[in-house]
Amino acid sequence: MSEATTTDLYEVTMAMSYLRERMTRPATFSLFVRDLPPGRGFLVAAGLESALDYLAGYRIRPADVEAFASALNRPTRDLARLRGLKFTGEVRAVPEGRIVLAGEPLLEVTAPLPQAQLVETYLLNQVSYQTAIASKAARCVLAAAGRPVVDFSLRRTHGVEAGFQAARLGALVGFAGTSNVAAATAVGVPAVGTMAHSYVEAFPSEEEAFRAFARAHPGPITLLVDTYETEEGVRTAARVLRDLDLTTGSAIRLDSGDLGALAVRARGILNAAGLPDVRIVASGGLDEYSVDDLVQSGAPIDTYAVGTRIGVAADAPYLDSAYKLVEYDGNPVMKLSSAKVTAPGAKQVFRCPGYADVIGLRDEGAPGRGHRLLEPAMRDGRRIAERPALEEEQARFTADLEELPHAALRVRSPIAPRAVPSERLNALVGQVRRRLIEHRRSSAAPPASEPRRTVSGREKP
Amino acid sequence: MSEATTTDLYEVTMAMSYLRERMTRPATFSLFVRDLPPGRGFLVAAGLESALDYLAGYRIRPADVEAFASALNRPTRDLARLRGLKFTGEVRAVPEGRIVLAGEPLLEVTAPLPQAQLVETYLLNQVSYQTAIASKAARCVLAAAGRPVVDFSLRRTHGVEAGFQAARLGALVGFAGTSNVAAATAVGVPAVGTMAHSYVEAFPSEEEAFRAFARAHPGPITLLVDTYETEEGVRTAARVLRDLDLTTGSAIRLDSGDLGALAVRARGILNAAGLPDVRIVASGGLDEYSVDDLVQSGAPIDTYAVGTRIGVAADAPYLDSAYKLVEYDGNPVMKLSSAKVTAPGAKQVFRCPGYADVIGLRDEGAPGRGHRLLEPAMRDGRRIAERPALEEEQARFTADLEELPHAALRVRSPIAPRAVPSERLNALVGQVRRRLIEHRRSSAAPPASEPRRTVSGREKP
Repeated sequence: MSEATTTDLYEVTMAMSYLRERMTRPATFSLFVRDLPPGRGFLVAAGLESALDYLAGYRIRPADVEAFASALNRPTRDLARLRGLKFTGEVRAVPEGRIVLAGEPLLEVTAPLPQAQLVETYLLNQVSYQTAIASKAARCVLAAAGRPVVDFSLRRTHGVEAGFQAARLGALVGFAGTSNVAAATAVGVPAVGTMAHSYVEAFPSEEEAFRAFARAHPGPITLLVDTYETEEGVRTAARVLRDLDLTTGSAIRLDSGDLGALAVRARGILNAAGLPDVRIVASGGLDEYSVDDLVQSGAPIDTYAVGTRIGVAADAPYLDSAYKLVEYDGNPVMKLSSAKVTAPGAKQVFRCPGYADVIGLRDEGAPGRGHRLLEPAMRDGRRIAERPALEEEQARFTADLEELPHAALRVRSPIAPRAVPSERLNALVGQVRRRLIEHRRSSAAPPASEPRRTVSGREKP
Repeated sequence: MSEATTTDLYEVTMAMSYLRERMTRPATFSLFVRDLPPGRGFLVAAGLESALDYLAGYRIRPADVEAFASALNRPTRDLARLRGLKFTGEVRAVPEGRIVLAGEPLLEVTAPLPQAQLVETYLLNQVSYQTAIASKAARCVLAAAGRPVVDFSLRRTHGVEAGFQAARLGALVGFAGTSNVAAATAVGVPAVGTMAHSYVEAFPSEEEAFRAFARAHPGPITLLVDTYETEEGVRTAARVLRDLDLTTGSAIRLDSGDLGALAVRARGILNAAGLPDVRIVASGGLDEYSVDDLVQSGAPIDTYAVGTRIGVAADAPYLDSAYKLVEYDGNPVMKLSSAKVTAPGAKQVFRCPGYADVIGLRDEGAPGRGHRLLEPAMRDGRRIAERPALEEEQARFTADLEELPHAALRVRSPIAPRAVPSERLNALVGQVRRRLIEHRRSSAAPPASEPRRTVSGREKP
């Protein structure tokens, strides 16, 4: 089995039907987030690179066909048309690191209908969760207001794959490092970390533990000071750091209690000991809200280590994402429902000054001073460009962040800008709606917007 | 690089120090969940099998040492002692599928201190998130009160690894199937799924879509009826199913709107059409709360498809888990802190009737009518038994569930039973606490409970 079986079964049952009906003309699906979760003023686009890797390697192998056949309790020959199927389509997408808003397509796939359908589950999975985590992490960077933030989330993420992405996406939005060695190595960011309470407990005394750590790790060290009594721990750390002349680049870490108050006292003890350059790292259940509180209170914390709540995006662990058919064989498609209208047609997002974004049609001209967010990413099933360097993705995020209105940047009760549809998109929505309503009234002829049955000439059963 | 680098850096820095100090005597770490999240009356132990696979294959390879050295900015020779390190220890654990309570060790590792430390991050990761998801899924089975529940979560889980586990753990607690083909195949449970709205939209009409689907899939089918107008969709489905004589085993799926009210109307339409055996599947943002509401309201829904909120355990996406050193070289270890005391010593959990659980010491006798939850799982770094069959894990869960007090089973405001410490454990806590306090008062000699420095004879720097 390959990654092709990491899919909802219904993608396969639909693809089988499309292939049988010879409905293999190009379809465009649009992947977007309908609404932002409460507490989000923006989203950071992510997951595209994983999606492109998947699409570039997509192939239904014989073992996959057997798995599908077994899942459907059908003979393998009934799935013969799936064998060897690759993704040969086109992807236009918002590059990773760019800021997007509700309703804006993050990615559009145009490919023969069965292919575009088969890849739905995987694309939704990667883009949804990675965007959720990148967006959460970005808020921590905002809350820290220039102080370094590092990622300690690996122990609580939903698996090691999610842990890897949490570290990578943290780095993308400006984290200064991660505790995850594999991710630090692969992504090329600093690996950070010091010692656990168990380390201190394994020695006869805190001081013995600190001295042993220094023996194993020459140069600046970070000492965890709250295993027993925090202020005493700070004093012990100060003594050891001074004795060993580790006065520059070293740090203490506070991991429990009232971090703000303890940081004030720790700073006092360190300064009194002649260690003004020993930094204070805080950790322990932090998220953007508690970091914001600490920063606003003036707590003398130099580095914030965030973990669990960021790695699982605890307050919004999923996004209301959708992958919707918007065009088939050149004709716009729309679901006629009062609650969840998906505008038809392949689209483009025009980023206008002040995030007065316009969602328009793919082929319409940019409004004045607007630029296009969706860029060609894949053609004929192949990546158009190499995977971008982390620095490039970071630069995109930073540039987009600078333009975001203040209300969207707030940690508490942010207000997200809203994209509006272009006139041409609005006109198309009205036109398709009228056709669909007429069609439902007559309930006889296919709607004018959906003539591909005759075009594609489906075979009879 | 191997899985050994999927770790927090501090495990490596601590292990280096332990190896340097020759602190390689056996240590016992206990992995437990401190408190249950709100809305949980119990936890379902999970993640053990992934943890055992990891430990059995654990080995620090040369490329891992290079990654560690690079992360630490140290020459590789400084990490020579790590090279080739394997896990040679013992694991005692609660088997997957068993129900556990706050504070009860899910797993205890006894191994040379550096080994037991190095595996912390991975074990915490797997056991924490898998237990969180299994526990959430179990609540859906309770809410459905005997009606089948199926897993549709893959598109929103935090990666495909998490999606696989969500499907597996759903099956473990009694889900009837999953949409995830790879998981269904690997775990040996039914794969389920039908069609998306996009499928219906890709055809000239709903009826055409339904008929095309039936052509591709002989035998019973499930038709999605809410793409346009739901009641009309049900009538169309009824017509198609009757025409094709698919009156038994087929179903319709409702995916939006007021599912309870729509199910009542759909049931009426189907019955009036002479299709009393066509079932109704409901999906769309469901979790144990909405399933409970629907069941309590008497909605004629036959199958509940749950997805996103279960796959990410939306209301409690992480657990307050800990991996604590409780014994080193035969001596109990404890962190002296008012807030988070971890009881010292290797432990056992005694499951007593009515979940009057007792947390005792590993070597103490079971209280009357109590049995031991922690079982030997690994010795000398090797699994003691083969990976259990899914049926065995399911049977454990079912048996444990039957004994749970009613208040713990409630979907809303459940009350979890609380385990109590045994007299011997209480006595040990008092004894170690006194020693630690005496030690801190004198601040000279190592506490009596921690003499291994002399035992192990650390080398001097």
